Amino acid sequence: MTFDTQPSRGPKSIRIDFEPLGRRVTVPQGDSILKAAQLAGIDLVAICGGIGVCGACRVRLIEGRLSPLTGAERKALGSNLLAEGFRLACKAHPLTDVRIEIPPESLNLTQKLQLEGIESTFDLAPAVIPVDIQLSPPELTDLRADLTRVSQRLDGLGYPPLSAGVEMLAMLSNRLRDWNWTARIAIIPGRETSELVGILPFSQPLLGLAADLGSTKLAFYLVNLENGAILTQTGRMNPQIAYGEDVVSRIAFANQGVESKKKLQTRLIETVNQVAAKLCKEVNVNPDWIVDSVFVGNTVMHHLFCGLPVRQLGTAPYIPAVSEPLSIRAQEIGLDFSPGARAYLPANIAGYVGADHTAALLAGGFFEDDRTAVLVDIGTNTEISLMVHGKIFSCSTASGPAFEGAHIRDGMRAAPGAVDDVIFSDGKWEISTIDDRPPVGICGTGILNAISALLDTGTINDQGRLVSGSPWIKMENNVPAFVVSAQGAANNNREILITRKDVHEIQLAKGAIRAGIEVLLEEAGIGTEDVQDWIIAGAFGTYLRLESAIRIGMLPRVPLERFVQVGNAAGVGARQMLLSTHKREQARLLAEKAEYIELTTYLKFTEKFVESMFFQ
Amino acid sequence: MTFDTQPSRGPKSIRIDFEPLGRRVTVPQGDSILKAAQLAGIDLVAICGGIGVCGACRVRLIEGRLSPLTGAERKALGSNLLAEGFRLACKAHPLTDVRIEIPPESLNLTQKLQLEGIESTFDLAPAVIPVDIQLSPPELTDLRADLTRVSQRLDGLGYPPLSAGVEMLAMLSNRLRDWNWTARIAIIPGRETSELVGILPFSQPLLGLAADLGSTKLAFYLVNLENGAILTQTGRMNPQIAYGEDVVSRIAFANQGVESKKKLQTRLIETVNQVAAKLCKEVNVNPDWIVDSVFVGNTVMHHLFCGLPVRQLGTAPYIPAVSEPLSIRAQEIGLDFSPGARAYLPANIAGYVGADHTAALLAGGFFEDDRTAVLVDIGTNTEISLMVHGKIFSCSTASGPAFEGAHIRDGMRAAPGAVDDVIFSDGKWEISTIDDRPPVGICGTGILNAISALLDTGTINDQGRLVSGSPWIKMENNVPAFVVSAQGAANNNREILITRKDVHEIQLAKGAIRAGIEVLLEEAGIGTEDVQDWIIAGAFGTYLRLESAIRIGMLPRVPLERFVQVGNAAGVGARQMLLSTHKREQARLLAEKAEYIELTTYLKFTEKFVESMFFQ
Repeated sequence: MTFDTQPSRGPKSIRIDFEPLGRRVTVPQGDSILKAAQLAGIDLVAICGGIGVCGACRVRLIEGRLSPLTGAERKALGSNLLAEGFRLACKAHPLTDVRIEIPPESLNLTQKLQLEGIESTFDLAPAVIPVDIQLSPPELTDLRADLTRVSQRLDGLGYPPLSAGVEMLAMLSNRLRDWNWTARIAIIPGRETSELVGILPFSQPLLGLAADLGSTKLAFYLVNLENGAILTQTGRMNPQIAYGEDVVSRIAFANQGVESKKKLQTRLIETVNQVAAKLCKEVNVNPDWIVDSVFVGNTVMHHLFCGLPVRQLGTAPYIPAVSEPLSIRAQEIGLDFSPGARAYLPANIAGYVGADHTAALLAGGFFEDDRTAVLVDIGTNTEISLMVHGKIFSCSTASGPAFEGAHIRDGMRAAPGAVDDVIFSDGKWEISTIDDRPPVGICGTGILNAISALLDTGTINDQGRLVSGSPWIKMENNVPAFVVSAQGAANNNREILITRKDVHEIQLAKGAIRAGIEVLLEEAGIGTEDVQDWIIAGAFGTYLRLESAIRIGMLPRVPLERFVQVGNAAGVGARQMLLSTHKREQARLLAEKAEYIELTTYLKFTEKFVESMFFQ
Repeated sequence: MTFDTQPSRGPKSIRIDFEPLGRRVTVPQGDSILKAAQLAGIDLVAICGGIGVCGACRVRLIEGRLSPLTGAERKALGSNLLAEGFRLACKAHPLTDVRIEIPPESLNLTQKLQLEGIESTFDLAPAVIPVDIQLSPPELTDLRADLTRVSQRLDGLGYPPLSAGVEMLAMLSNRLRDWNWTARIAIIPGRETSELVGILPFSQPLLGLAADLGSTKLAFYLVNLENGAILTQTGRMNPQIAYGEDVVSRIAFANQGVESKKKLQTRLIETVNQVAAKLCKEVNVNPDWIVDSVFVGNTVMHHLFCGLPVRQLGTAPYIPAVSEPLSIRAQEIGLDFSPGARAYLPANIAGYVGADHTAALLAGGFFEDDRTAVLVDIGTNTEISLMVHGKIFSCSTASGPAFEGAHIRDGMRAAPGAVDDVIFSDGKWEISTIDDRPPVGICGTGILNAISALLDTGTINDQGRLVSGSPWIKMENNVPAFVVSAQGAANNNREILITRKDVHEIQLAKGAIRAGIEVLLEEAGIGTEDVQDWIIAGAFGTYLRLESAIRIGMLPRVPLERFVQVGNAAGVGARQMLLSTHKREQARLLAEKAEYIELTTYLKFTEKFVESMFFQ
């Protein structure tokens, strides 16, 4: 939401950007951050009512300057939080334009995150298996070393001898003694050795963590490895947003130096550790019972997560350091699971088609060779794959963040108060908002539905121009704009508009997606009608109204029943790989099979892109 | 050297223990640490002559209190050294009894360290091999990931695909670009994958580090893995000495808590890193060209080095956490080599017979089944092995630190100024000192030779009593003592004596060693005359005079030509394992074959020990 046109009256105006929500507001100098947040429709926790004693509304400065630290802040925050740069939103006010980070714990309402997806049945075959052991303790007539003692028991059960890193070995020795030589160990049975990855109390369930690391959103699933049950799950905003909204700006930030790149990694790993600890606490288990993990993300997220270089991903020909599946020690990148736990990262397909897409293809069943199917995973970058005659073609297209509400005048993410539907019924316009709260801005699905209805009513022409003279159009700075809501944000009393520029942003986004689809179809030599299954993935893809997406030309006009909206397919694929080594192998083969089509050098792409920008 | 009897005169007396040298001195309060060190015959670097400007005489407080920090110290040391707790010996004086650590760089004269040993010829077969690669850079028509690009080249050469940790992968990507896709990579070729352990400039030699981690001394060898040459080598005092003189006291220190145990590990790892960096600088190579390493030490050193628990090594039945050979990532314990380098730690035999003994057995040729041989590795703990009829019997005996000069009235380690020989010739006693410096104290070989001569002259009887009335005996506190040197330490003007208690310490030490030998012979059912080869290892074992050792009964009376003094056999074995995986396998089999005899529960040990304490 942009308030750039706020008239100046008296005191200096200050612009505040709230991250990771991507919301901007302009307030008179002197207004507290809390007041500004309320104005922007952001519901900060303020238990004490903003008198500076509860410490709950803590935020962090990213850029700019704030008023000096007050005694109340010192008292409420304590030295640890102060050292981490926290301030109280109710006490601090900006002295310059600022960017403010709101940590998840300070937000009253979590954002709508997509966690559900298609599920399929498959046999459990986790990489890590449990072995319960009860050993006789050492004595003068039995001087075997601890590792030998356990290895020989495993040998009796038909497993090869144990191997492990030193921290795992140390934990084994300590826990065997603490637990009177009775425990459950978690091993990865290999050909020559059994890798020790965890030691748990006797008969406790082995746990795994699957995570989908999106550029914007992170989704986490804590899973029982022995029966596949999701014990608990949650979503978080990606903390890296504070350093760049999309992967391109994060690569630029990383390129500033080793420390910057390290910071992106550290913030992400810290968040994963915090979430893992929180999920474990929720279901009353110990984080070191997590003995395996799977992480999927686009190639840049994958590289930043592992500490691999990303500079080369920022310039053509966009080469990944690694495209093979990686199985690394979770400890090596600072993850606080069992010291022996591994982190599995499936194969990347290309610099802009990452392991998250591989996971989505797996979840979408692209290993069944006889299908003809398209998978569209909509995001800031939209990855598209087409399977036909046992072949897979993949591409990535820069659809931009418009569907997340960015670059849209009154755009916002799909949070409470966002207009998510605009329809024309009985001669008048009606809107609905998420959670039926007073309208604050408009989210991706809202603007999609609005444009669809504006096309139907002839308010927008086929080039995307708002037809002036139409009764629902007002002139804003001499340019026609559609009034979504005259009353605007609850505390802000300002209209919510859709401008010509907003429509253009959507045209760019939908044009990019449609052109990508068309290129793949052409490459395969088939038409839209030949494709049986159209799988639409991603949070936005789940909530979008198919009719609207077809109406604006983002998706082709095929029978609605051919579409399936699967939600977070990448997260589903990640869970499948956590639970089955066969799924890992299937995913590896999928990535190997996928033929990457680089659109930037594809001759006809530009032509198709321009065509696709128009409305029909 | 103990000055406990220093008369008090005026100001309070202060006792100072200097570590890691193990020297004690008593001085009047107000004397600087530098002055006290000089009094104790310790040659601290003092470039500026003790006026507090050069900062070279820096030392660190371990225990007790020092005078307040002076401005001169602040200026000379700088904030980094101050933060690490350094003080200037020339400016600080103790306020209480203190223990002071002298870092190696502050000592003018390095101690005599044993680095030479028996060498044997064997075929080079290092675990890590070099592969020179020159790759075509990525382009739009060749989008392979970096790892794929290298793997496919390896495939062309017949090696399996690459695997690696993430930091190694990151280095690979960066260096390939920096070096224009031309480099030498270091791999461990396995059955399924080639493990990437290093990336060097094209055609540079792969390096390895072998180290013998003794309780007291550390020995390091920087080796060219491709031709086996030792590029350079050095010795250091074990920095853990500051926290305990022997392994028992270090276990006690480690048991104080996680932080204490961590400190023992950290100090050791820091020293290894410093030495590795220094050795590399000496021969103008980069420490990250070190792509493999082998570390040997007794079981406690082994466990502390790796961060394994040691509590259970401190109480019967003295169970190691691990006795199997370990191949760990050097990075995992903080070693600054190539991020992919491994640290190989050979098998331990038992809680008190460690991997250093395994290495010594390897160097001593104990894999040749037809030999009858005894290996005695003399140290604070003396490990003894007997091979006969293809079997190996091993034990460990607490010979104590007397041979290192500890617990001896005027004892000291084998440093310049130590009396190392005492003979009776032409009716009078003559002494010699290391480096012909004025006598400061007496070292292990000195006291051994002295007692041998005292027995020959009848000055000591067969029970170890100094025969009063002998002309070379004076009464010291009503107990007879032998005057080694009337003039004593150069700056200290005090006699060097051998007391009844000193002789008793040596009797305990030699008795323990001899009893250990006798137990093994009895267990094997053979006599001393049946053993062909007597291999005497360890620094002290190299410098001792065999005739004296036989005279006092530490070693049995067999023909001198059956003895061989091999020096640091453990270090030689470590180098062999660095250069050959076959040697690693031989060592593994040796440790497996060795049958450990626990002396503390061996019925006849005490009897043999008491017998062995007498002189014949």
